[in-house]
Amino acid sequence: MYKRLLEIPVGVSGRHVHLTPEHFHKLFGPDASLTKLRDLVQPGQFAARETVTVVGPKGVLENVRIIGPLRDYTQVEVSRTDCFKLGVNPPVRDSGDLEGTPGCVLIGPAGIVTLERGVILALRHIHMPLEEAKRYGFKDKDVVAVEVNGERGIIFQNVLVRVQSDAALEFHVDTDEANACLLTSGAKVQISSEQLLIRQPLALGLTG
Amino acid sequence: MYKRLLEIPVGVSGRHVHLTPEHFHKLFGPDASLTKLRDLVQPGQFAARETVTVVGPKGVLENVRIIGPLRDYTQVEVSRTDCFKLGVNPPVRDSGDLEGTPGCVLIGPAGIVTLERGVILALRHIHMPLEEAKRYGFKDKDVVAVEVNGERGIIFQNVLVRVQSDAALEFHVDTDEANACLLTSGAKVQISSEQLLIRQPLALGLTG
Repeated sequence: MYKRLLEIPVGVSGRHVHLTPEHFHKLFGPDASLTKLRDLVQPGQFAARETVTVVGPKGVLENVRIIGPLRDYTQVEVSRTDCFKLGVNPPVRDSGDLEGTPGCVLIGPAGIVTLERGVILALRHIHMPLEEAKRYGFKDKDVVAVEVNGERGIIFQNVLVRVQSDAALEFHVDTDEANACLLTSGAKVQISSEQLLIRQPLALGLTG
Repeated sequence: MYKRLLEIPVGVSGRHVHLTPEHFHKLFGPDASLTKLRDLVQPGQFAARETVTVVGPKGVLENVRIIGPLRDYTQVEVSRTDCFKLGVNPPVRDSGDLEGTPGCVLIGPAGIVTLERGVILALRHIHMPLEEAKRYGFKDKDVVAVEVNGERGIIFQNVLVRVQSDAALEFHVDTDEANACLLTSGAKVQISSEQLLIRQPLALGLTG
């Protein structure tokens, strides 16, 4: 069976923050607790009612949602469009890989946190349960190309596959990536190949 | 020679408006004239010093630049990210094709213009001078795929080629499209093929 027949639901990630318990309490007070607004597709993950203000050298993003539960690192995931507003130039990173990333300031109702690092553009990725991975022949850290059809059709290269026992099948992109090809959460995409080796001349479309 | 060897400079279009003389004078006054801030890559086109405020049902975009010279239609080109802020849902359109597009309100220092239509997401396209078109075998209205390399590598499908005698060679994308693959103005991209027929099984990356 072709790998590419696997249809994957899309999850578009808006800008959001993950917080450590220490940072959460500094922002919301020692007795505060993170409360659930709604469940996300990934099991156990939720959008919280609580939001923070993110401040960069050039501008501010208000009402940036916290994604729960609290983690052992604080991370601010923004789009590149947001970066121009904030005045930061973060790298593309997998979650938790924060060495060398820029910082920012977070403001909550009870306090302020100054981050030395933690702002990233999220590396687009597929969450894949073990079962689908076995069935379709993928392994953790495979890099694939993902095809989006339609008027603004795009093929995303360099998509990381994360095989996890507790995952729900989902292709995560940020709002710039989604808006570039008119994707919305819940749409379905397909894996085109392990990676399109486009640098090899193709048999089509060449006058050659 | 392969078509794909043609290297094309990128032009990233931020949100902007084109105005008719009538609308310009309503917004800036009967004696105003459009003044140049800087030339654009396309011959004769310029970013004006003058800006307007664009108002939609849900929000406002301030300081939206006018692109000169004045035209025989008024058109507001925004990114899909902007659309969520404005609260409009425009289609992807080639410039000037405004039938059935949503309207908005424009505010200038001397007046207000209510547009019944004119808001679009710009159809990504390549401006190609006649000489390059002949040399590389393209014709007006060809549809090609464009490859962007790098960490957030993307292949854009459905890219319209516009062959024009007075054009400068340039690949135009909006800010969402540019940010999705970390493109900046002046970077170089290549045409991959007339269109990637990805629905045909490829010889690579398939287990099947």
